[in-house]
Amino acid sequence: MNLWPPTDCDVSSPSYNWCNMATNTSSLEITTMSPFPDNTSSMTTVQSSTKAADVQNAPTWDDATWILTSSFIIFTMQSGFGLLESGFAGCKNEVNVMAKNVADVIFGGISYWMFGYGLSFGTDPGTNAFCGVGRFFLNPDDSVMGEEYSRFVFQASFATTATTIVSGAMAERTKFTAYIIFSFFNTFVYCFPAHWMWAETGFLKNLDVVDVAGDGPVHVVGGTTALVAAIMIKPRVDRFTSQNNHRMGNPTNALLGTFMLWWGWLAFNCGSTYGISDGKWKIAARSAATTLMSASGGGITAFVASYIVNKRIFEIGYIVNGVLGALVSITAICAVTGTWESLIIGAIGALLACAADALLHRLHIDDPVAAFPVHGVCGAWGLLAPGFFAHEDTITMSFSKRNGLVRGGGFYLLGVQLLALLTLVAWSAFISFVFLKIIDLTVGLRLSLEDELLGADFVEHNIGSNRQMIEVKASDRVNNQNKIEPTKLENGVEERTKENDKPYSSQICLISYRANNEM
Amino acid sequence: MNLWPPTDCDVSSPSYNWCNMATNTSSLEITTMSPFPDNTSSMTTVQSSTKAADVQNAPTWDDATWILTSSFIIFTMQSGFGLLESGFAGCKNEVNVMAKNVADVIFGGISYWMFGYGLSFGTDPGTNAFCGVGRFFLNPDDSVMGEEYSRFVFQASFATTATTIVSGAMAERTKFTAYIIFSFFNTFVYCFPAHWMWAETGFLKNLDVVDVAGDGPVHVVGGTTALVAAIMIKPRVDRFTSQNNHRMGNPTNALLGTFMLWWGWLAFNCGSTYGISDGKWKIAARSAATTLMSASGGGITAFVASYIVNKRIFEIGYIVNGVLGALVSITAICAVTGTWESLIIGAIGALLACAADALLHRLHIDDPVAAFPVHGVCGAWGLLAPGFFAHEDTITMSFSKRNGLVRGGGFYLLGVQLLALLTLVAWSAFISFVFLKIIDLTVGLRLSLEDELLGADFVEHNIGSNRQMIEVKASDRVNNQNKIEPTKLENGVEERTKENDKPYSSQICLISYRANNEM
Amino acid sequence: MNLWPPTDCDVSSPSYNWCNMATNTSSLEITTMSPFPDNTSSMTTVQSSTKAADVQNAPTWDDATWILTSSFIIFTMQSGFGLLESGFAGCKNEVNVMAKNVADVIFGGISYWMFGYGLSFGTDPGTNAFCGVGRFFLNPDDSVMGEEYSRFVFQASFATTATTIVSGAMAERTKFTAYIIFSFFNTFVYCFPAHWMWAETGFLKNLDVVDVAGDGPVHVVGGTTALVAAIMIKPRVDRFTSQNNHRMGNPTNALLGTFMLWWGWLAFNCGSTYGISDGKWKIAARSAATTLMSASGGGITAFVASYIVNKRIFEIGYIVNGVLGALVSITAICAVTGTWESLIIGAIGALLACAADALLHRLHIDDPVAAFPVHGVCGAWGLLAPGFFAHEDTITMSFSKRNGLVRGGGFYLLGVQLLALLTLVAWSAFISFVFLKIIDLTVGLRLSLEDELLGADFVEHNIGSNRQMIEVKASDRVNNQNKIEPTKLENGVEERTKENDKPYSSQICLISYRANNEM
Repeated sequence: MNLWPPTDCDVSSPSYNWCNMATNTSSLEITTMSPFPDNTSSMTTVQSSTKAADVQNAPTWDDATWILTSSFIIFTMQSGFGLLESGFAGCKNEVNVMAKNVADVIFGGISYWMFGYGLSFGTDPGTNAFCGVGRFFLNPDDSVMGEEYSRFVFQASFATTATTIVSGAMAERTKFTAYIIFSFFNTFVYCFPAHWMWAETGFLKNLDVVDVAGDGPVHVVGGTTALVAAIMIKPRVDRFTSQNNHRMGNPTNALLGTFMLWWGWLAFNCGSTYGISDGKWKIAARSAATTLMSASGGGITAFVASYIVNKRIFEIGYIVNGVLGALVSITAICAVTGTWESLIIGAIGALLACAADALLHRLHIDDPVAAFPVHGVCGAWGLLAPGFFAHEDTITMSFSKRNGLVRGGGFYLLGVQLLALLTLVAWSAFISFVFLKIIDLTVGLRLSLEDELLGADFVEHNIGSNRQMIEVKASDRVNNQNKIEPTKLENGVEERTKENDKPYSSQICLISYRANNEM
Repeated sequence: MNLWPPTDCDVSSPSYNWCNMATNTSSLEITTMSPFPDNTSSMTTVQSSTKAADVQNAPTWDDATWILTSSFIIFTMQSGFGLLESGFAGCKNEVNVMAKNVADVIFGGISYWMFGYGLSFGTDPGTNAFCGVGRFFLNPDDSVMGEEYSRFVFQASFATTATTIVSGAMAERTKFTAYIIFSFFNTFVYCFPAHWMWAETGFLKNLDVVDVAGDGPVHVVGGTTALVAAIMIKPRVDRFTSQNNHRMGNPTNALLGTFMLWWGWLAFNCGSTYGISDGKWKIAARSAATTLMSASGGGITAFVASYIVNKRIFEIGYIVNGVLGALVSITAICAVTGTWESLIIGAIGALLACAADALLHRLHIDDPVAAFPVHGVCGAWGLLAPGFFAHEDTITMSFSKRNGLVRGGGFYLLGVQLLALLTLVAWSAFISFVFLKIIDLTVGLRLSLEDELLGADFVEHNIGSNRQMIEVKASDRVNNQNKIEPTKLENGVEERTKENDKPYSSQICLISYRANNEM
Repeated sequence: MNLWPPTDCDVSSPSYNWCNMATNTSSLEITTMSPFPDNTSSMTTVQSSTKAADVQNAPTWDDATWILTSSFIIFTMQSGFGLLESGFAGCKNEVNVMAKNVADVIFGGISYWMFGYGLSFGTDPGTNAFCGVGRFFLNPDDSVMGEEYSRFVFQASFATTATTIVSGAMAERTKFTAYIIFSFFNTFVYCFPAHWMWAETGFLKNLDVVDVAGDGPVHVVGGTTALVAAIMIKPRVDRFTSQNNHRMGNPTNALLGTFMLWWGWLAFNCGSTYGISDGKWKIAARSAATTLMSASGGGITAFVASYIVNKRIFEIGYIVNGVLGALVSITAICAVTGTWESLIIGAIGALLACAADALLHRLHIDDPVAAFPVHGVCGAWGLLAPGFFAHEDTITMSFSKRNGLVRGGGFYLLGVQLLALLTLVAWSAFISFVFLKIIDLTVGLRLSLEDELLGADFVEHNIGSNRQMIEVKASDRVNNQNKIEPTKLENGVEERTKENDKPYSSQICLISYRANNEM
């Protein structure tokens, strides 16, 4: 992603269009600024007498159109995440998961407006390699509002995405109030890495790190936070004691959500060229192609892996994690690599996602929607990938200033990418642990056992008309309540109840619990 | 929203790009026309020797891209409304509600093509302050088709939205044939206010009313019509006699629909700059930011309100109405206000939506999806908001020609906005009453009691495979039909039956009725 | 759809923007290249002294923005098809249908990258009227990647759409592995017709065939393949022996899918102008308007037809097939006709779709989602429509070079369209028969009877938590299994079983079978 700084702009970079226009229109000698496509294969040279017009030909609004349109499509990813997570969750939590995604946008959005944007992209005195200063409670005047608001909307779509990744890992057992507080403060986990990677003064940016569309600040940070949250909040009741427990409630919605994320990802990766003028349209087109091919590579790998591992069954979890893992894996490098590399990157990403998911299960870490495998693990792989496969960006000179290892660029880039990865993991693990711990010690992260068994849809949103609940009650009524034989399952409940030292409203919980185990 | 008239164009307004190009290319002295971003903070002055090129640099197609792309996204709001209303409706009407949204587009679309567009934007002789003349059965020749078709598609996406607002208020008890007739004629309710507010000759437009994206013609008109319809058609059977009656059938779909509307609203508000060239991209960016912040303000308010009012429960109805109410509230002012104001406007809108919904319930007016509270009440608030908070539009000089009261602009603007509100409410209440009364007296608006109890999915669309119906039948079969004890509920049915003087096919209705009361 | 060839470009066609820029910037005399809107009604003439600037004013990236944005929206149609087909399918196959749509994109996408794109649009030596050569395993260098990747992404969105049409016709009874192989090889069925119709050397292209957005290569080819597949794979068990069998599982999702296709179709048809610069924005706007009006015409016709045929019932199948049939019918001609014609074309298309669906049912050909009626029959009608109703394209000179029969253009165009239709039907029937036969003889196309009765969700994806299955089991458990009386239905199963010479694991199948017949 490429950002322009209205105050201290870098004239040597032709991709900083808005900035360049300001600087260059008064000095018409600059020849590297041609707004024409540098299509040397088929285009004869433009006469120098038209240079003045050239500069003026780069219309600011073309880039704004691209940025805003991309932002609109990126926001649809919030619906995609909602459906994906809601579909993976059990029936008695599917509404709650959607509502959490609403909270992401409104509470995460306001804290991003208050602090996040300024900490990432402020340029007032005091701005340093670690964070920005200024632009808090963003309210620019008319002279700069075009640039500021475009960037704010685009960046806000990224920031809220980073938060929603975590919601999946905490699904089905987190208090809504605790989640709201988390979604407000998660902005702080996100906005510092965004500064390091993308702001002009960011220390990783100045090491020429490559992260086109946010594998670092969005996926590595989100995935790491998801892992911390999943470990801290502990598994759902009975998650690792019963075989058929906690099945996907609505696989159709999960796949619909995957589709929505897929298309949104195209805008996410292509929009991250942050403009379309000059040569940026070319790398946007390349981003679209590599994103598609990576998903193909990852999807095919996941189909084959599931066919082998699960004995001729194409598990929905494999398909979803394979496609999304591949999309995460290509995110950092999308604009600066080729189709062959993207296939390989996607295939490796899909394998990593499926393997990491199996590993978490073995470690009894409960991550209901595979947020850490998909975003954390594949995000890490994606962030390292430019170290191997990046092509030097010869068009805008900005997205990657050198080749990766495989293309003879040496170890420098790989080293920088590794440094970025380690820095981001350490930062987000530490800071999210602190935030979550504080929330846990004050409000409390976890639902009570009764509430968890009843389901968050009922206890948080009073959705008693939840279909499954009704059905269970109905069939129980037919049974005159006396044929329920919870047997050993009940013991499990009582054990957990003792742990929590809370009263156990047995009858209603049992009904719900039974529903849980059947569904 | 800003429209250009190819025949009588206003040269003084730089936002009328297509029009200006025609006028100005022959007189190259006009200096206010600079297509460059007026980024005075960072840009040195452009030499006057390039003025000729300036005018030519404004490419018509950039605006067309913006308008068409926005239109495509706005049309997705139809799906959003469909899902929202379908999710709020009971299970036995969810398909019917979706089908009504199909009818909106096809029947509303054709009447908009036949009459609506011409009555709003015709400029033939006879056009006056009240309505346009010409362009009926729109079929322009090649020389003007670009402008005409772009505007038609964009406006049609608005017109069909206005109709779909009403469908929610009439859900679960309206005959499909009556609804089809209504959706055809509702164009007339919409197209006159659109002329008043947006056409060059419109009397409110010429008073400098501010309504960027249609709070008046779309939301106030739609919401008022919804109220008239809800009152006239009376509540659903047993709506206000039983506590748990008429619960939301599918809250997940309702939230998905809310998300779709949210993202669509970005295109709705930003696309209403009706172009991207010159400075319009700046106010489009501002519209996106204020729309997001208003939704945050409204959403937060709704979360807090629900937590307090509903004793720690986050009701889905509050969340949905809060977010949508805030989006409606910012619609008129989105391009000409700041982030602080938008937060306040959204918060007030959310409170109004939730309060109005509670009031309707107390008044026993049955508006199943809160169409009047969200669109009517928040639309009214949104239309008044520029009177308080509008910033003078110094960039395109067209969206607001003065400041609102809070910014020292005096009472003029507030007066105009109030006049617009009262005019629109009076118009739409009267004309929609007439239309609905005529339909009621001829075709009949309301389903028979039997049909309502059976559900519109079954009686209108022969969907016997409706899950819930099957389930009820199945469990009844288990019970050998003889354990059903409708008791006092049955009395309610019979009472209503007498009112309606219609035969009562008891057995099948009872089964359905029971399903209704359980679900 | 209009494509530009970077190597052998046709200077006479002003719509070949990228190409022209290359050629024309060195010879500044060409006057037909004005990038200004040719809005002769309101625009004074542009001075010839600005010609040099004119050519340079056509910014390549504007077209790229249009193409890429359209592509992103077109990809959402994959979700639309998935939901539509999933909703039409029974509950026990709804997830499987969605997963097949994932397979379309990843397996179809990779084969399109490997061979399809090159066979359609390659221009290396050896390229002829029948197929292209070159660009296999597409991986262009930096100098041409903008054009190549834009076109690849756009075309890939078309190619995967063509495949997904077929998936609907094969739903509920096709092996997943067989489908995967099919979706990989279906690229070959699609890519040759695409060459004939759209590549510079294509033989139908050089006869001036009119097919703006792919009625031929996408819909006629997809629909014909769907018919071949449906016949070859035979009907679902008991499809034509029981009245209420095989009802739609989820009509709400089917309608949501229809909506998604509807909006996607706007991008599909408008994006097929393949650019927005020069006059292309005008025909894009016209495409949007005709697409909307055609859907109105078709939808109204379907509502009326269903009301009459089905005795006051508005069948969801009619509505969906009417709207989609109309959208298919307008696809070939969208950019070069008027609103009146589009209404008529849509109305006829809707009638044809509904009639063909009834005919298939009478012929006992089982096409669960009406893929052949909607895409094959309406595609054929749509491909012939320009022969009657095309307007000569006076703006870009490229989409239709002559008028249709009704506008006095004579029989030439109708003849060419008919030739294209016959060629495409013959090609796709033959080649898809060969592919499907080979797959049938090796892997086997059809699920075993047991698997079909159990449902593909369970046997292919291990989704035992499928709601319906659980419910059936639950109610059976209540019944102690001994009240199931399959009676004559069982005979049907046993008959089929004998045909297939496969073991019959009776108990589990019966449960499922009963579910099938109730749902």
